[in-house]
Amino acid sequence: MISRQSARLVADTPAIADAHFRAEAEPYDPRERPGGYLNLGTAENRLLWDVLRARLGELGAFTAWTEDVARYAPLHGTPVLRERIAALLSATCRTPLDPGHLVVISGATGALDALATALCDPGEAIVVPAPYYGAFDTDLGGRSGARLLPAPLPAATGFRLTAAAVADALDAARRAGITVRAVALSSPSNPVGEVHPPGVLAELLRVARQYDVDLISDEIYAHAVFGERPFTSALDPAVNPDWAERTHLVWGFAKDFALPGLKTGVLHTRNPHVLAATRALAYFAPVSTATQDLFARLLAEPAWVEGFLAEGRRRLAASYRHTAGLLDAHGLPYVPAEAGFSVWLDLRAWLRGPGSPGPDEGFAAEERLRRALFDTARVSILPGGAFRAPEPGWFRLCHTLDAPLVAEAVRRVAGLLGRPADGPPGPALAHVPATPAPADLPPNGGRP
Amino acid sequence: MISRQSARLVADTPAIADAHFRAEAEPYDPRERPGGYLNLGTAENRLLWDVLRARLGELGAFTAWTEDVARYAPLHGTPVLRERIAALLSATCRTPLDPGHLVVISGATGALDALATALCDPGEAIVVPAPYYGAFDTDLGGRSGARLLPAPLPAATGFRLTAAAVADALDAARRAGITVRAVALSSPSNPVGEVHPPGVLAELLRVARQYDVDLISDEIYAHAVFGERPFTSALDPAVNPDWAERTHLVWGFAKDFALPGLKTGVLHTRNPHVLAATRALAYFAPVSTATQDLFARLLAEPAWVEGFLAEGRRRLAASYRHTAGLLDAHGLPYVPAEAGFSVWLDLRAWLRGPGSPGPDEGFAAEERLRRALFDTARVSILPGGAFRAPEPGWFRLCHTLDAPLVAEAVRRVAGLLGRPADGPPGPALAHVPATPAPADLPPNGGRP
Repeated sequence: MISRQSARLVADTPAIADAHFRAEAEPYDPRERPGGYLNLGTAENRLLWDVLRARLGELGAFTAWTEDVARYAPLHGTPVLRERIAALLSATCRTPLDPGHLVVISGATGALDALATALCDPGEAIVVPAPYYGAFDTDLGGRSGARLLPAPLPAATGFRLTAAAVADALDAARRAGITVRAVALSSPSNPVGEVHPPGVLAELLRVARQYDVDLISDEIYAHAVFGERPFTSALDPAVNPDWAERTHLVWGFAKDFALPGLKTGVLHTRNPHVLAATRALAYFAPVSTATQDLFARLLAEPAWVEGFLAEGRRRLAASYRHTAGLLDAHGLPYVPAEAGFSVWLDLRAWLRGPGSPGPDEGFAAEERLRRALFDTARVSILPGGAFRAPEPGWFRLCHTLDAPLVAEAVRRVAGLLGRPADGPPGPALAHVPATPAPADLPPNGGRP
Repeated sequence: MISRQSARLVADTPAIADAHFRAEAEPYDPRERPGGYLNLGTAENRLLWDVLRARLGELGAFTAWTEDVARYAPLHGTPVLRERIAALLSATCRTPLDPGHLVVISGATGALDALATALCDPGEAIVVPAPYYGAFDTDLGGRSGARLLPAPLPAATGFRLTAAAVADALDAARRAGITVRAVALSSPSNPVGEVHPPGVLAELLRVARQYDVDLISDEIYAHAVFGERPFTSALDPAVNPDWAERTHLVWGFAKDFALPGLKTGVLHTRNPHVLAATRALAYFAPVSTATQDLFARLLAEPAWVEGFLAEGRRRLAASYRHTAGLLDAHGLPYVPAEAGFSVWLDLRAWLRGPGSPGPDEGFAAEERLRRALFDTARVSILPGGAFRAPEPGWFRLCHTLDAPLVAEAVRRVAGLLGRPADGPPGPALAHVPATPAPADLPPNGGRP
């Protein structure tokens, strides 16, 4: 009826989107719909719309468009937008990026797909430290035909990245006769929120070189860092002295600019073959010139951009501290985050299996808990299984929405969970000090 | 170095885009650059920017956007845009289209790719009446892995569509053991500009049914009809009583709305499996919500849309009559067009081969002529080889730009060609009566 390649894609479509739209269709409202859903499952930053809206007003009207907006433009991005993105990311990556090495694509998903397709033939593999962004399976494998091999990170350290875990996975693949073409990484990490230390990145790049595989570094949260450790790009010469031509970056406007609806992603590669291939693939997923024009104007004034990103980090930090304080107050353990839109909850103590819990039973119990949270508490948060977590019991909670909504969600989650199955909460991996809602965060998250 | 699948795509990237950007980089200007290029190679309608610009002004400013524009939306199109496209195309197709059967994708290219991938596995085939839109090779085959089998139409009738030619190609494929999954068609045709008669479409659908193959009908020029025969969609129940679930439409805003930069295409299918597959594929090539919002507003008032499309047809007819008049005056033969942005020139009489011209030699001579036109006359028009024309010597000339530019281009082409190699121009297939530039077409094509 339909092709095998598309049937496989339909079967693998991630469930994340489904929970998102079900929750968004009946949203919680304290007056109108007090029993409605709270969607903390989507990594969407809703803390910045007031700033963006004001800026859109300053940028003027649709009539500011010239005929160029209507016409055909290079399908890998307009020159002006690529120039401005290159200027921004050159500072972020601490190395000059050439606009000619950028390929603009309709979403970071498209950029990941283009890189995976450029590097892999069907059946070849990409190693990914796990837990990882759940949509990587589809983004990197859905159209390219590449298979993803998780490199499990240790729960005991809060799933911190180690080059050894990646080397082990590469080694195991080699022994099994699997051709691995690349390692893919979220940096900063999603779902855990770690800012990878320069030393670990340097070691990872040595491993990539040793095994002769490319690195795909998804740096879409590069400016969403609020912890003490600054962000280091995989392309920073300090960590990448000799593997830059085999290192390919992905970035976009969905996270750092809080505009996921505008579907604008970009990749950077210095490899001429990968550049030619990804440009040819961008032909299938170009970005509207109107949206490119908007982003080119948003980036036109570096001072505004710097202020905007700083404000974004400030609000993100405040939202995180508020959420961490709530979790502490309710005795819910989590891994402390330094970046990103989420906290990684440790609900292992609340998993109950009907029988003796083996690993599969554990993930079945995790799914039962997710469903109870969705159906009974009416809170959407995503389970570790969706992120290929090496063990069950972990959940990603996104906090980048109005502070009272986060408070209501944590209250509901804690209420449903009660005391853990095995008595008092197990030892948290680590805790940040409990903090009340900070004074600089208005109750509505700073929006008008 | 890179994957085989992407290397193949790089090798097959169409040359059309290259000539476009080379010509656009050094455009003709009567005062500033009188020796500059005239680009009549790109099917871009530049006759309507004044109307569009005025409408954008009425639609207001960026600040009219609500937060919904910033947020994640269904990746197969916002409900409001799909509703409004469905309303428009229901009238065009003379059958009610369900918004739930529409999938919005970033460009008609993406829509064609999604349908081909949904229907074909690598190595399976799609039959396409030839000459055909040259980018079909990449759009339909580049990512899906499908191969295109041309069904040559007869030059003697000006390459009019016949169901018999398609049946012959299906038959030949069957005998060769090739699995054909679909027939693909431009309707109205590109490059020839034929509005396919209802009887021929009905017969074609009977052939599709007989051979149990789907029909992909690319109706992106549906509203660009200016001849006497009205447009008939392949989904019109009058021609398609029993194959509608195997008939899939493609449409977009590039041609009928003269906004190719905005990269917004759409497909329609009533087949639930193809719908699920193409929705899953749209995930990789979504359209910016800001652009979807703009199009939803453009379509909001049916009266404006009707007036706009009527004005588009009027300007298109005037531009075509003006061009046909110029060609007649210079003795350049062509196939009369009823739709689309181009005329299909018959330059067979001007092909010269250094030796005895076999068919390959003929296409080599065609390419020499194209290059002479580009390099010496500095006019970009595309040769029949780029459209898989069954014989050499045909060229597509797009006339939808300022009338004086068309006049300059035709003057240059005629000047370079001089008298044909074999004496006076061969018998033209047909001529429309020579017409002077119509009084209702201002010299600048109606733009302010």
